Amino acid sequence: MAELNNNKTKGVKMENRVFNFNAGPATLPLSVLEHAQKELLNYNGEGLSILEMSHRSKTFDAIINKAVQDVKNVMGFDDNYDVMFLQGGATGQFAAVPLNLAIKGRPALYINTGSWSKKAISEAKKLGIDYKVTATSESENFGYIPGSYDVDANASYLHITSNNTIFGTQWQNYPDTGAVPLVVDMSSDFYCRRFDPKKFGLIYAGAQKNAGPSGVAIIVIRKDLLERSPDNIPTILNYQTFAEKNSLYNTPNTWGIYLVGLVMQWILDQGGIDEVEAINRKKAETLYQVLDSTDFFRPTARLDSRSIMNITFRLPSEDLEKKFVAEATAAGMIGLKGHRSVGGIRASIYNAMTQEGINALVSFMREFEKKNG
Amino acid sequence: MAELNNNKTKGVKMENRVFNFNAGPATLPLSVLEHAQKELLNYNGEGLSILEMSHRSKTFDAIINKAVQDVKNVMGFDDNYDVMFLQGGATGQFAAVPLNLAIKGRPALYINTGSWSKKAISEAKKLGIDYKVTATSESENFGYIPGSYDVDANASYLHITSNNTIFGTQWQNYPDTGAVPLVVDMSSDFYCRRFDPKKFGLIYAGAQKNAGPSGVAIIVIRKDLLERSPDNIPTILNYQTFAEKNSLYNTPNTWGIYLVGLVMQWILDQGGIDEVEAINRKKAETLYQVLDSTDFFRPTARLDSRSIMNITFRLPSEDLEKKFVAEATAAGMIGLKGHRSVGGIRASIYNAMTQEGINALVSFMREFEKKNG
Repeated sequence: MAELNNNKTKGVKMENRVFNFNAGPATLPLSVLEHAQKELLNYNGEGLSILEMSHRSKTFDAIINKAVQDVKNVMGFDDNYDVMFLQGGATGQFAAVPLNLAIKGRPALYINTGSWSKKAISEAKKLGIDYKVTATSESENFGYIPGSYDVDANASYLHITSNNTIFGTQWQNYPDTGAVPLVVDMSSDFYCRRFDPKKFGLIYAGAQKNAGPSGVAIIVIRKDLLERSPDNIPTILNYQTFAEKNSLYNTPNTWGIYLVGLVMQWILDQGGIDEVEAINRKKAETLYQVLDSTDFFRPTARLDSRSIMNITFRLPSEDLEKKFVAEATAAGMIGLKGHRSVGGIRASIYNAMTQEGINALVSFMREFEKKNG
Repeated sequence: MAELNNNKTKGVKMENRVFNFNAGPATLPLSVLEHAQKELLNYNGEGLSILEMSHRSKTFDAIINKAVQDVKNVMGFDDNYDVMFLQGGATGQFAAVPLNLAIKGRPALYINTGSWSKKAISEAKKLGIDYKVTATSESENFGYIPGSYDVDANASYLHITSNNTIFGTQWQNYPDTGAVPLVVDMSSDFYCRRFDPKKFGLIYAGAQKNAGPSGVAIIVIRKDLLERSPDNIPTILNYQTFAEKNSLYNTPNTWGIYLVGLVMQWILDQGGIDEVEAINRKKAETLYQVLDSTDFFRPTARLDSRSIMNITFRLPSEDLEKKFVAEATAAGMIGLKGHRSVGGIRASIYNAMTQEGINALVSFMREFEKKNG
């Protein structure tokens, strides 16, 4: 970890921190971490840590209620929607979605855009759900988001993966599904940009990429869908049960919810979702410009499907990729190795990644090309 | 919060902390919290928080492996056992146990010793498992642990709740079940005392009472039982899948696992489980002596079934109980209100509660009796 780590910029105390391009768990806003650190031993002068606090206390009630409200406020979800904080990550939701929302005789539709879609589909299959893959980009190694797909009007729901961390693709516009509830795994691009809340039946996201630590999944669900939950599914996966109890049917991940709340507040403090989106687009553009300006770096996602959260690219050889990752790490930029299933390079640049981090990476890339191109 | 909070005793910096008698999430060792606070922004000089660290990193691998090993070491579990850290708390395990371990034609046995046993039983019922309640203390308001019960040698397993937070009872000796796997919900007395590891088929515990923060459940399972997991259950609840992947099938609660590891290390630093048990017995004895020395306080658990973790008692009237809780809170002793389902007073005195906290409570109780008796 070289000189980068000793930088102090714009009054931000870097504390010798690296630029963290990990895909998840991922970088968090420094101000959020500092806030959490400061009150870790003694929350709000109450004489105990948030880690030691009853989930049935008035104090925690205020924390979770504010987190719920801010998840709604940031994007403008109205009272037709409930917010829940559940355990088990997206993997838990791969099961919860079909168990709660699939209706007998009405197929569950999936669009397959990569590894996470495939896991969601294989879970529906495993659980004996009547499902159908209505579009896929697998034959072209998931390099794009399908532009056309059938939505059977009788379907229980249509499930898509909003952003594909491994392949660096992202839905640019969410599909119109009419009366069929749109269910979206938004784990890797949750609240990275403005969208129309009314399009969605259900959104879920493991918090550990764009909204908090691991161990808490955020669920936003249109209330009418809660009526679908059957009685005979595991209680821990039952949406209706947890919605009725404001996520407090059992002891939730209190610390995780607290941190998600701090991250939502941080988005509001940035000026809100439009401001965060503008910053994200600028960051992604900065990186894609470098990728497009040379043949040395080769972006893997099709132009019309590029993610603004995970930028994936190849170098001329695997040896150069190894060298790139090693030298970047030595220069204080970590987590750039592509997913083990596809190789290459991946820069995950979630909301908390700063333009400063992007600029450092871009400088490094240009320098690396000059030396090795 | 009066003078108690400003005490500095034996070199421990109190940071104006209260004595926390919450049932869970509960008090944690101050040294663990201070350790976590200190390295929250920058773990081990790596330039990022544990909260931002990939669960696939070598650093996190070392953290989880040490936590697994210490869970085994503290109690002497041998290599016939696997340790997992899962999400969803005990409520998740209420479903996971029957889904993974119940074998068709071989009943799942339950002993009903209180609210948590009932939840475990009702989950087995909901999931359509062939179950049988082989003993219960419900008719006497769960004031004791049944001393006799049948264990059908053909049973899939026998499930018990080790300690009953709400009713203040605890199994003094675990049952001998022969070849039938003993499954124990140890959420509220996990590692409060020495036991013989070889007696157990499976132990599970939500960490938030005696072993860490909420959001992580500790599972210790005898490896041969992993073969029972069927393919068609939700993956998030599949023991075999998570055991094969060392709890890393999906992103776990990394922060929770880290803290459980710190708490295990803290037990070892105390001198190990025998030393912790001795301290716990002294603490419980101190409190029970007061309860037994007067008619003003009336312990609710039968003498032969008393918990050393949750001490439950009544005062002469509900008004006095309210006054007791209010004045204790004002004096810096929080969380003493009994569970909403039974009322009364409950002092939860898990491993991290100090003798100092017990002494403060005892002084308060004697004073309260003097004024109101």
